[in-house]
Amino acid sequence: MFENAARTEISSLGEFGLIDHLTKNFVLKNNTLKGVGDDAAVIATEAGKRTVVSTDLLVEGVHFDLSYFPMKHLGYKAVVVNLSDIYAMNAKPKQITVSVAMSSRFSLEAIEELYAGIQLACEKYQIDLVGGDTSASKQGLTISVTAIGEANEEELVYRSGAKANDLLVVTGDLGGAFCGYQFLEREKRVYLDNPQVQPDLSGHDYIIERQLKPEARKDIIDILKALDIKPTSMMDVSDGLASECFHLAKSSGTGITVYEEKIPIDPTTYNFARELEMDPTLCALSGGEDYELLFTMSQADFAKIEHHPDFSIIGYVTEASEGINLITKSGNKHPMKAQGWTAF
Amino acid sequence: MFENAARTEISSLGEFGLIDHLTKNFVLKNNTLKGVGDDAAVIATEAGKRTVVSTDLLVEGVHFDLSYFPMKHLGYKAVVVNLSDIYAMNAKPKQITVSVAMSSRFSLEAIEELYAGIQLACEKYQIDLVGGDTSASKQGLTISVTAIGEANEEELVYRSGAKANDLLVVTGDLGGAFCGYQFLEREKRVYLDNPQVQPDLSGHDYIIERQLKPEARKDIIDILKALDIKPTSMMDVSDGLASECFHLAKSSGTGITVYEEKIPIDPTTYNFARELEMDPTLCALSGGEDYELLFTMSQADFAKIEHHPDFSIIGYVTEASEGINLITKSGNKHPMKAQGWTAF
Repeated sequence: MFENAARTEISSLGEFGLIDHLTKNFVLKNNTLKGVGDDAAVIATEAGKRTVVSTDLLVEGVHFDLSYFPMKHLGYKAVVVNLSDIYAMNAKPKQITVSVAMSSRFSLEAIEELYAGIQLACEKYQIDLVGGDTSASKQGLTISVTAIGEANEEELVYRSGAKANDLLVVTGDLGGAFCGYQFLEREKRVYLDNPQVQPDLSGHDYIIERQLKPEARKDIIDILKALDIKPTSMMDVSDGLASECFHLAKSSGTGITVYEEKIPIDPTTYNFARELEMDPTLCALSGGEDYELLFTMSQADFAKIEHHPDFSIIGYVTEASEGINLITKSGNKHPMKAQGWTAF
Repeated sequence: MFENAARTEISSLGEFGLIDHLTKNFVLKNNTLKGVGDDAAVIATEAGKRTVVSTDLLVEGVHFDLSYFPMKHLGYKAVVVNLSDIYAMNAKPKQITVSVAMSSRFSLEAIEELYAGIQLACEKYQIDLVGGDTSASKQGLTISVTAIGEANEEELVYRSGAKANDLLVVTGDLGGAFCGYQFLEREKRVYLDNPQVQPDLSGHDYIIERQLKPEARKDIIDILKALDIKPTSMMDVSDGLASECFHLAKSSGTGITVYEEKIPIDPTTYNFARELEMDPTLCALSGGEDYELLFTMSQADFAKIEHHPDFSIIGYVTEASEGINLITKSGNKHPMKAQGWTAF
């Protein structure tokens, strides 16, 4: 009964382009200090307090494969990825809402498992589940989580505050979640070819856990406070280091230079990448889903984190004109490519 | 790779039972004054202010049929149904987040239309879109909206405050959205049988608009304030009057008696129901999607609304022991059945 004259494929814009495109004409009218365009939205309350909101959608067959992703882990991860966005604002998540659409293929027990994982995450991170909706779907499972957090006005850190000569810092290590994904996909193919074979997970626990049970860096917010460091910009590493560098640089109007040799990669990740003849650095740059925090800070704070085991200084902020670059281990400078993971 | 020993069908619990079941072990830990169990969650901020959050999921083939539901109307409705939940707390919505999962069948233009409707609703109701996520899906369209509002502490109205002898009041009229749905389904069947026939919408504008472009009762919040009425309990009519009476009574620990002859039904709704040999009262009781407000208030406030065109006094609150009853036009008293619409 309805038809469209023109047709543009959504895939031609990519996820970020689509959101920008769709929301560019929306005008903020209320006490909203930050709408679309950062890890979370910021809402003014009273006397310097801020409410922070973030939302994510997880779709079966796009974001997860239930042939190897246990429902409980999925519930846990669905919450954690949202909390990560709140921490990336240097804020503390306090509440979530969770909505789930599922086909008749799912039993009550399966959905209970999902919620058991959600509950586990709520307990670990001290979060209140405050709402949600459930519905049938024609096919598959879709999970929508919205996280709400708070911060004092002066503590919030946006993507847009990086300045030339700031240090670029990342927490933990990168590429593990992507290698875990590659491992699980490989074991799935083995299993499909020969269902009698039990998967051999030994020695790969770390990368599997990075993929199936990621954690948000709640601890970092407290550590930064204890060290008296306020990052100039920050975001979480959900789409891969390269993609996040582009986001930070674009939002801040700067360039970024990263040293390949400084990128923290766990030995397990490194070895598995080599086993699959993948470049470990590329896993870190383009893999995503590590949920580490990437931030910039003043050089004046260098001594505070120089020897801290949770932090790696991987580069620095430049003028925008210098672009986004990677200094390879061999000392060559290459423009970085933002080939993050996309849901289209 | 995974299997469940036992299997209970989700449909055996129904939508509300499932949410209750899944969330019953979650414990509130923060400044959350109200979690799952009302139209919206309530979060304490400072100095008597409250943040209010509500979320809804709309799934193609379950909540809407795109063969007659224009994308723009769908976007508008997706927002409005969430705002309705915030108004039902006697609060004012201020922000929304919107997440959308869509299959490759949808063009950019189609999604733009969806967002045009979202934007229209944001303008009409003065709401900021503050976040969201978009993703591919394997099949169909899913929309998740979270609305955030605020109220002064003393203004909030829950479902749980009704007292015996309070008056039961509903705004506007009921059953129209359900008749609009029946009309559109009928025209769809006619069209599928004979695509040359253009649908004849004349005379049915009202019920079609009730279904395709519902409004949330923003005005009622202001009217109640102007009349100096604070309802003792309130919720919106999304699942049908009968279902909502059960919710209010259960939350408040009371009974409810409704007079059939007092239920407001528009003549267009009445005539169309009769044309289809449906009972107009049943359309109001079980149809849902009217997004009117149903509330209880002290008899002391009776004179303030007695002749007000926006309100119909349709019954009263009783002791719980009396149950939920309908006094028919013939004067007989029958226990009411809660046969609201369910998404399973």
